[in-house]
Amino acid sequence: MGSHSGARAESEERAVSGCLFCQIARGERTSHTIFDKDGVVAFLDIFPCTPGHTLVIPRQHYATLAEMPAEEVGKLFQVAAMVAAKVQSALGAAGFNLGINNGKAAGQEVFHVHVHIIPRYPDDGGGSMKSVAHFKGKETVEQIAAKLRPSFAPS
Amino acid sequence: MGSHSGARAESEERAVSGCLFCQIARGERTSHTIFDKDGVVAFLDIFPCTPGHTLVIPRQHYATLAEMPAEEVGKLFQVAAMVAAKVQSALGAAGFNLGINNGKAAGQEVFHVHVHIIPRYPDDGGGSMKSVAHFKGKETVEQIAAKLRPSFAPS
Repeated sequence: MGSHSGARAESEERAVSGCLFCQIARGERTSHTIFDKDGVVAFLDIFPCTPGHTLVIPRQHYATLAEMPAEEVGKLFQVAAMVAAKVQSALGAAGFNLGINNGKAAGQEVFHVHVHIIPRYPDDGGGSMKSVAHFKGKETVEQIAAKLRPSFAPS
Repeated sequence: MGSHSGARAESEERAVSGCLFCQIARGERTSHTIFDKDGVVAFLDIFPCTPGHTLVIPRQHYATLAEMPAEEVGKLFQVAAMVAAKVQSALGAAGFNLGINNGKAAGQEVFHVHVHIIPRYPDDGGGSMKSVAHFKGKETVEQIAAKLRPSFAPS
């Protein structure tokens, strides 16, 4: 896993100078990389919230999901789910959360798309995805649904 | 979006009697469905943690990601990211968290795979994916990496 040469096509790669995760993907910065294949790299978060907390990134630089081609998004999560299953198994974890902070308001800090894998352990005291925010709006679920449906109407 | 007939191939569908989300996917239970296409259904969480909190499920029943074919996992998240972008835009949200609770230890309550879309708003007081758990183990990141690498060694 130490090699960052080989199949990478420099010409097809878009990297951003000064991006921490581009530097990790290129091997220009020390990391605990555990997976590096087909344009997807996984490495351990150095400030883990549970043991085995892993980040999965596309080698190519995209600041947020909005920049990323749809098929690439699917591939990234497909690989992330595979990595998560292996991490869970290797560490004897009981489950995992897998997810992304998309945008500053969602807690994104490094603007290079990264999926968090958070292995979970019995009685670890944590919660669920719902732990990320508790903010009641003024509208009912019915009102929100009515606002959303035009965006999803068949064209 | 009200129709649940049409392209659905009953014969290819695996549903589980008594599963809340199978019932929603089949239209047998009232829901605020906003998207229903190509085997993926999105509907509003009736206990939203922020306005527009949406769940995205495969029509076919899989209890956890481990049961789901890899390509289906990729497709589910690809669609979820598309739905999330539309939800963000329609509601004027500033970002979103997108993720999954996989397994009881991760906070999964309904055992039919579902991706949470949690729209985020400026100053909503929430956090990031790291909010789901804070559990320090006894091992260093280096030690965890050493434990993980054999699972990812080229075969």
